[in-house]
Amino acid sequence: MYSIGIDIGGTNTDMGLVRNDGTIIARSTIPTNAYTELQPYIHDIMDCIAKLMKDNNVEKIEGIGIGAPNGNFYTGCVDNAPNLTIKGVLNFEQEMHKYMDVPVVLSNDANAAAYGEMVYGGAKDLDNFIMFTLGTGVGSGIVLDGKLVHGSTGGAGELGHCILVPNGRQCSCGRKGCLETYTSARGIVQTYCEQLRENGKPIPENIDSKAIGDLANQGDPIALKTWEIVANQLGLAMANSVTFSAPQAIFLMGGPTKVGDPLLKPLQKAFDKYLLNIFAGSCQIRMSQLKANEVAILGAAALIKMKK
Amino acid sequence: MYSIGIDIGGTNTDMGLVRNDGTIIARSTIPTNAYTELQPYIHDIMDCIAKLMKDNNVEKIEGIGIGAPNGNFYTGCVDNAPNLTIKGVLNFEQEMHKYMDVPVVLSNDANAAAYGEMVYGGAKDLDNFIMFTLGTGVGSGIVLDGKLVHGSTGGAGELGHCILVPNGRQCSCGRKGCLETYTSARGIVQTYCEQLRENGKPIPENIDSKAIGDLANQGDPIALKTWEIVANQLGLAMANSVTFSAPQAIFLMGGPTKVGDPLLKPLQKAFDKYLLNIFAGSCQIRMSQLKANEVAILGAAALIKMKK
Repeated sequence: MYSIGIDIGGTNTDMGLVRNDGTIIARSTIPTNAYTELQPYIHDIMDCIAKLMKDNNVEKIEGIGIGAPNGNFYTGCVDNAPNLTIKGVLNFEQEMHKYMDVPVVLSNDANAAAYGEMVYGGAKDLDNFIMFTLGTGVGSGIVLDGKLVHGSTGGAGELGHCILVPNGRQCSCGRKGCLETYTSARGIVQTYCEQLRENGKPIPENIDSKAIGDLANQGDPIALKTWEIVANQLGLAMANSVTFSAPQAIFLMGGPTKVGDPLLKPLQKAFDKYLLNIFAGSCQIRMSQLKANEVAILGAAALIKMKK
Repeated sequence: MYSIGIDIGGTNTDMGLVRNDGTIIARSTIPTNAYTELQPYIHDIMDCIAKLMKDNNVEKIEGIGIGAPNGNFYTGCVDNAPNLTIKGVLNFEQEMHKYMDVPVVLSNDANAAAYGEMVYGGAKDLDNFIMFTLGTGVGSGIVLDGKLVHGSTGGAGELGHCILVPNGRQCSCGRKGCLETYTSARGIVQTYCEQLRENGKPIPENIDSKAIGDLANQGDPIALKTWEIVANQLGLAMANSVTFSAPQAIFLMGGPTKVGDPLLKPLQKAFDKYLLNIFAGSCQIRMSQLKANEVAILGAAALIKMKK
């Protein structure tokens, strides 16, 4: 059996034909920002899907899963996503059903990543876990009893916007001190610059979290200290999340998590320190087993495995 | 139809015969701390239940629900509850089935209170909410899609032990800065004493959160300031919990919440301030509609309405 996974970003819309074993058979891309209306955009997406199927001799698909900013699981719509050039509440499910009568399921990208981990990745043995995605922002997806937690609004699982430090760093959400402001790629750079300043060192131009990771792995003490601070903050947020749903594991995904030991060693230590004693030993820290260039499409495709 | 609700405390074990409409028809009590072995304890509980049924001409019950410290929904056991004189892992379900072949369901008291609110109280119209119980400690129960969240261990929903202030006040759990250390009855007294000290006032003997509530309602500025601080801390924790499950409401229960406006007015303000914008207007603050002397038995009785 096959399905289609679609990853909608502000710049590109990536589509993939996915086989049930988690292999992406073929891909296709159109520029999201070339569209200002939903109908022609969906028309071109459905053209790509038809072509992907025809080229690969696939006559039937199980459904279409979509990971999108503000993708709403309950309504099948994308609700006023700020980074899309097509504005408003966009009913993907309804528009796509004009072309093809298969299930269409939407969620946001972090939720899709979490569900993809369960269907195709390193969480196949679990039905209760939390995924933290570290990147430009910090996202999260929560799986409980084998189902994604969408909450009453469809917008649940926004742990990147837990306030970690009241009156802390300014967040793009308008509030202050969100986890995202400390453990996103930008938050990590900010902490590194603070550490440089505290140590009377010059601030380099165009430094990014990857470079800070490389420096840490070369033994640079300020870079190492930076990752320790980040690990302490992330470990606290992770331990707090355990008090909510007592997951079997917390997964990590995204560029900054690739640094390895400089993050992971102090992270395990901080997590153990902050974890409530009744949960000791019950929750592992695991790395995502999906490839960075496949997770968005696989996560989206996985969504159709979930019953509404 | 009828059921039995049992509230197991360190001192007393309270039992109630509950009618389906949420009326407690009759009650019975035995002293928990008179027992050091499970078998005689269960024997006497089952005697009380038989008598409650006989005296009220009830021939059949739907089940027995038990709210107990460390009550485990999955196993039907009470796991090493520190405040019980009967030690070890206590298999209530198995022992009770020797006397009566009805469903036996256990959970902890805060979870039971949350579920009782849905079955018999002010959450009948909701299937997604969080209950915070303020008292000696701070407990919580989380309902998602109409079911209690027990997590992988059975111990989920411990939001009183979210760390609010890293390296903050010492908590009885061994860690520091848990929500409980700030918004439990004792935490409120501690904040009040800190405020008195800051203002150069003497610390009264035997002050409790009820008295601080009375002072606030009489206009005492230091008591009012105390509740404002507590409201700010609780409002932050509540807003953070919304990022997890996007509930329709957060319920409050317990002695300190009875103070009224001195807590509730700044609480609504803090909650609105700390709530992520995508959840604005989607989550109400509500007060529990169950009576303080009924909630434990009704909550326990309600547990049997939940499918395992």
